[in-house]
Amino acid sequence: MAEYSVAVIPGDGIGPEIIKEARKVLDKVGKVCGHNFRYTELLMGGASIDVHGVPLTEETLETAKKSDAVLLGAVGGNVGVSKWYSLPPELRPEAGLLKIRKGLELFANLRPALLFDDLKKACPLKEEVIGEGFDMIVVRELTGGLYFGDRKTVVENGIRKAYDTLTYDEEEIRRIAKTGFEIARKRRKKLCSVDKANVIDSSRLWRQVVKEVAEEYPDVELSDMLVDNCAMQLVKDPGQFDVILTENMFGDILSDEASMITGSIGMLPSASLGKTKLGLYEPSHGSAPDIAGENKANPMATILSAAMMLRYSFDLEPEALLIEEAVSKVLGKGYRTIDIMSPGNILVGTDKMGDLIAEEI
Amino acid sequence: MAEYSVAVIPGDGIGPEIIKEARKVLDKVGKVCGHNFRYTELLMGGASIDVHGVPLTEETLETAKKSDAVLLGAVGGNVGVSKWYSLPPELRPEAGLLKIRKGLELFANLRPALLFDDLKKACPLKEEVIGEGFDMIVVRELTGGLYFGDRKTVVENGIRKAYDTLTYDEEEIRRIAKTGFEIARKRRKKLCSVDKANVIDSSRLWRQVVKEVAEEYPDVELSDMLVDNCAMQLVKDPGQFDVILTENMFGDILSDEASMITGSIGMLPSASLGKTKLGLYEPSHGSAPDIAGENKANPMATILSAAMMLRYSFDLEPEALLIEEAVSKVLGKGYRTIDIMSPGNILVGTDKMGDLIAEEI
Ligand SMILES: CC(C)[C@H](C(=O)O)[C@@H](O)C(=O)O
Ligand SMILES: CC(C)[C@H](C(=O)O)[C@@H](O)C(=O)O
Repeated sequence: MAEYSVAVIPGDGIGPEIIKEARKVLDKVGKVCGHNFRYTELLMGGASIDVHGVPLTEETLETAKKSDAVLLGAVGGNVGVSKWYSLPPELRPEAGLLKIRKGLELFANLRPALLFDDLKKACPLKEEVIGEGFDMIVVRELTGGLYFGDRKTVVENGIRKAYDTLTYDEEEIRRIAKTGFEIARKRRKKLCSVDKANVIDSSRLWRQVVKEVAEEYPDVELSDMLVDNCAMQLVKDPGQFDVILTENMFGDILSDEASMITGSIGMLPSASLGKTKLGLYEPSHGSAPDIAGENKANPMATILSAAMMLRYSFDLEPEALLIEEAVSKVLGKGYRTIDIMSPGNILVGTDKMGDLIAEEI
Repeated sequence: MAEYSVAVIPGDGIGPEIIKEARKVLDKVGKVCGHNFRYTELLMGGASIDVHGVPLTEETLETAKKSDAVLLGAVGGNVGVSKWYSLPPELRPEAGLLKIRKGLELFANLRPALLFDDLKKACPLKEEVIGEGFDMIVVRELTGGLYFGDRKTVVENGIRKAYDTLTYDEEEIRRIAKTGFEIARKRRKKLCSVDKANVIDSSRLWRQVVKEVAEEYPDVELSDMLVDNCAMQLVKDPGQFDVILTENMFGDILSDEASMITGSIGMLPSASLGKTKLGLYEPSHGSAPDIAGENKANPMATILSAAMMLRYSFDLEPEALLIEEAVSKVLGKGYRTIDIMSPGNILVGTDKMGDLIAEEI
């Protein structure tokens, strides 16, 4: 019986509820397929601030490093309401997320954005824009760029001035580009690299290195697109995209836009990967503090994140598919949480949704 | 008879065609209202590269500085096809645009994105998302941030590395914030300031200074939003926005997304303003080299840009309204260029559209 150690970070808001359902489904997979998932619960974000005064302790980071994978609910509270946001930026919940990404060297963030056939009604786009549907994945660089460059705020001649630095070297670009091409190779073999090469140097280097890497992938079709144009094309014709490869900040913006375009952000998982098999898996949505504890949250994105964990960190492709198919079946039977509810569907709560999916396995 | 000197930059692609129609309409306004618009044609972008080898000469910039306003068609060609893009970045067509913005100190870029009642069908969003419609304006800082910070690409330990700098000082933020609040005051009195204050220092300073400026505008409701969330909200519920205030790169991305959401980018004008009355006016769309010279381009965005010029640079509000009403009337009568054509409409070319609008004045 294979054993896998999973560092579980429930986090804040709806985090604990959706993580509970993901564990329920994982346990069922373990039982059916003969695996043992051993969980270690860790604190991060607001939950860690409340106990330790910081959003992620060194100790927690070390424990995460030693596990086979990290499964995360969500971190963060209600800005303007929660006391966490009166702390300096480096002590706020989200700083824990940035620290664990960097600490585990998770340079590749994978965010699928696809239209589920059963959820076409939830898509904000018109039928004629949706066309045949869409299924893309944003591959976002996660440990470089403006997020981790030097920064400072100083007073010069009596005037406050802030500096942020956006740097990329060719090795950082090459490794994420390779990830992008590898993924494209397993999909529809189209990679669109997004940058702002008409303005910034880091984008020009990006474009150049991506082109160099492309030579190793002659079977994948490469195109370049400017970030402003990409923000338009996602709305105009999302079906044109297969893999979108981009740097950290552009990826933050575009992956959120792409996920909202599906209309079902409660369905979208994500994976953050590094050089080793150790990855971090979390839903694409946030901690939704307004509905926390109300048994309303959609656990599917977290459950699908657990499927990604099986696939990428544990090499358990059949088991990953089991989960994905179970989610499909439950959708097909008409069960919905409130966020994706349409007339004629059957409304269920967070826990019931977890039960239903576990039952299908 | 009042005289106004207009520096006209036809530029590249469809630029000359749409500028011609804007002049036609301006001339009609001049005739009817007793103004004399004196035009000086200037070269910029590819058109200037072909003649002078650079996208904007110092001489041209000086002439623009001495005029009362600048009316621009569009610059740029087909990347990958046009020979202009084998030049180094600082010599490409778009560099001319950046240089004139900086040279004229046009720090405030105003980009309205609204749904025209007659063009609801062109909107890519579903009826229920459109709701009552939307009418927002993106106020984008235009002479700071990543666009104009120090940058370099170097080889360190045999590895290529690129650096870009994002800086803002409180004076740069204050002046654009004031522009934003002034505009909000004349509209629905809601200003949403967009930043990434959970990650970068310049955004934290941005948020702080905007808050300080807000104290002078107690009648305007201020909210803050993270840029990734804004990219989502634009798709989810565009009707929530009145004025969006943001920095240069975020503004580039979000204003393009906002304009695409209207479905009628061929209708959207823009204005770039500074401390003086001298402004630059251009359509929000690009140079569309693929349809250049075919009498297919929609001249309305350029004609509406001319209206903005009358309003902001010449203080001719009634004349601006005359143009805007003429455009409305022509739309109301069912005339359309190909980009906004729906069944039942009457298809017209670029020149005919200009004629029709001029006739209504
Ligand atoms: C919380 C925040 C720091 C984070 C980011 O910007 O990366 C989030 O938006 C995300 O995309 O995971
Ligand atoms: C052409 C390019 C440099 C420019 C920009 O990024 O500002 C354009 O996208 C715009 O928005 O006017």
